[in-house]
Amino acid sequence: MDYAKEALIKHAEWKGKFRIVGNAPLNTPDELAVAYTPGVAAPCLEIQKDVEKSYDLTGRGNLCAVITDGTAVLGLGDIGPEAGMPVMEGKCALFNRFGGVNAFPLCIKSKDVDEIVNTVYLISGSFGGVNLEDISAPRCFEIERKLKEKCDIPIFHDDQHGTAIITLAAMINGLKVVGKKKEEVKVVISGAGAAAISIAKLLLTAGFKTIILCDRTGAIYKGRENLNWIKEEMAEETNLNCEKGKLKDVLVGADIFIGVSGPNAITTEDVKTMAKDAIVCACANPVPEIYPEDALKGGAKIIATGRSDFPNQINNSLVFPGLFRGTFDVRAKEINDEMKLAAAQALADLVAPEELCAEYILPKALDERVPKAVAKAVAETARKTGVARL
Amino acid sequence: MDYAKEALIKHAEWKGKFRIVGNAPLNTPDELAVAYTPGVAAPCLEIQKDVEKSYDLTGRGNLCAVITDGTAVLGLGDIGPEAGMPVMEGKCALFNRFGGVNAFPLCIKSKDVDEIVNTVYLISGSFGGVNLEDISAPRCFEIERKLKEKCDIPIFHDDQHGTAIITLAAMINGLKVVGKKKEEVKVVISGAGAAAISIAKLLLTAGFKTIILCDRTGAIYKGRENLNWIKEEMAEETNLNCEKGKLKDVLVGADIFIGVSGPNAITTEDVKTMAKDAIVCACANPVPEIYPEDALKGGAKIIATGRSDFPNQINNSLVFPGLFRGTFDVRAKEINDEMKLAAAQALADLVAPEELCAEYILPKALDERVPKAVAKAVAETARKTGVARL
Repeated sequence: MDYAKEALIKHAEWKGKFRIVGNAPLNTPDELAVAYTPGVAAPCLEIQKDVEKSYDLTGRGNLCAVITDGTAVLGLGDIGPEAGMPVMEGKCALFNRFGGVNAFPLCIKSKDVDEIVNTVYLISGSFGGVNLEDISAPRCFEIERKLKEKCDIPIFHDDQHGTAIITLAAMINGLKVVGKKKEEVKVVISGAGAAAISIAKLLLTAGFKTIILCDRTGAIYKGRENLNWIKEEMAEETNLNCEKGKLKDVLVGADIFIGVSGPNAITTEDVKTMAKDAIVCACANPVPEIYPEDALKGGAKIIATGRSDFPNQINNSLVFPGLFRGTFDVRAKEINDEMKLAAAQALADLVAPEELCAEYILPKALDERVPKAVAKAVAETARKTGVARL
Repeated sequence: MDYAKEALIKHAEWKGKFRIVGNAPLNTPDELAVAYTPGVAAPCLEIQKDVEKSYDLTGRGNLCAVITDGTAVLGLGDIGPEAGMPVMEGKCALFNRFGGVNAFPLCIKSKDVDEIVNTVYLISGSFGGVNLEDISAPRCFEIERKLKEKCDIPIFHDDQHGTAIITLAAMINGLKVVGKKKEEVKVVISGAGAAAISIAKLLLTAGFKTIILCDRTGAIYKGRENLNWIKEEMAEETNLNCEKGKLKDVLVGADIFIGVSGPNAITTEDVKTMAKDAIVCACANPVPEIYPEDALKGGAKIIATGRSDFPNQINNSLVFPGLFRGTFDVRAKEINDEMKLAAAQALADLVAPEELCAEYILPKALDERVPKAVAKAVAETARKTGVARL
């Protein structure tokens, strides 16, 4: 199927991938008087007395804003706020389909960090949570950090954390297949954008020790020139042996390659220099950092990509619907690291030991068990870590 | 029925008076690939080339934002942004039920005019139109004016224009019943808030000549003290005879009383001083400026109120669903005065000559003909006046 062509036809038919439908009967004068004036004054006054009641008497408790500024949409780059909306709408449809979450897409006509933060803050009383999407790095880190400080609802940048969670799930199961330990493996990440940074952080939180991030210049290490603030921060926490050189140089002896950068970043020859039973995650879409067959030729044991037509798809949509479902179910005030780790573990655990193999380390995109399992783990962990309000 | 009690029970059950549901099938890998990645990149790129395409390839063309700052909610006053949300949700449910419009509620945590304007502007690329709601005067006038200058989508403050349109419809038919001419009648309006000002303006646009606005101090006239900027503006256009005194003083000899102020503003004795066959619109809710039976005792011929349990309900919900339906159907770039006049005329015309009487000057709230008739008139007028883009 020519997805691009079909997508244009279908999007013109759909004219929006979501609809907003009433949830209250409005067919008699009495029904109007209960759902609207004069009855509606009563819930208004309850919320005025106690804003927390807005979670009981309006829809915000199950309502997520999906917000972009259009600066890093898919692999297309800065295409503008309105042009990012088909992706946001798709995300909202997935939120609903897999998580039962009401999600609403918003694009912001600004690239200014503080203006974006203020806009989201000012409308945050309408929502139970915010999913940031396709905002370019390093602005996305600052926007997320400032929003977390300012807002009293969960803020989640999916390109960072959704990707990190599903990647961690792949690593948990991948290491089982190759019989290696997270504390002992060397991980090389190609990319230094939202996904790369967040993957590195979550792997460290999960107990991985040796991680090297590579941007276009090469390995990121403490003291290197041309590092922005987030890369400088990461240089403190990763590559503690201070390996220098290009991606290809530091890849030598690595157990794991994670590509979240762009097409054809490594070759069969590069994979040959990696450690035995290497794991290669080539997530660039649609053209990966290396195609599975080329990585296999180089001796890799496990290959994962961002595509649905190869085994082991690294797909955020396995994460965010269940993650927000669980967060909303217990009215968690934030999505903390423990909840992210629990989501990754729950995803990994869905692959039964007897099924686990090099070609099956992650559940499939349409596996209906996924959102339920993720939601359950996330909700339980929110309770355990004291961030649940229900 | 105890509407307040019932409303609390039902709102706690509903947990939101709308749901957001997917509009695209998401059950197979191919369907995912068309509605989401990789297919979704194609509509994104089309919109990047031409932002107008966002009306064809996303849902914005049928999507209205319903926005408040919570400063003038119903008759409850400044109850805060979150507390205004049950009303906004109700409005959205009505938009959907009667107009087939997707409408989404947003509350803004700010009372600053420019901050509100900027926030709405920054998210305006997500919507096809904006319905402002329950924002206090005179801030609402400035917010609406600035948004109209800044945004390229229709901006409509319903408390102003929705009320003005339905009131004008009542006047058109009321004058037929009493056999008077709009150019010759004296209209006294109690109130100087959003609704009062907008009613006065629309009546002037429709050809009424003699209108006196009264605030708490009394009649508004040119040169009076304690006038804010909007009242000063209105003093130039209304009360050209410069009548002075309290509401009761200027009401003497009036043909029409329009109350958009508060409970018990006038008495039977006051109505007795009005001209023969007076029309009394007492719109305060739930307690009107005068109860129908008291106005009738004073000799009024026609009584209208904001309530559904008396004849002739002045109800905005007869207006906004059809108005936005028509506006969106032809992708109008604004909602101009001609479209408002056409909406009022269409509403008045729905009462057939043989049915028209003192107790039936307006169609009923649940009359299914209403939104269709309003939409048709509005769309046709948008085309005639050159603001339609389809």
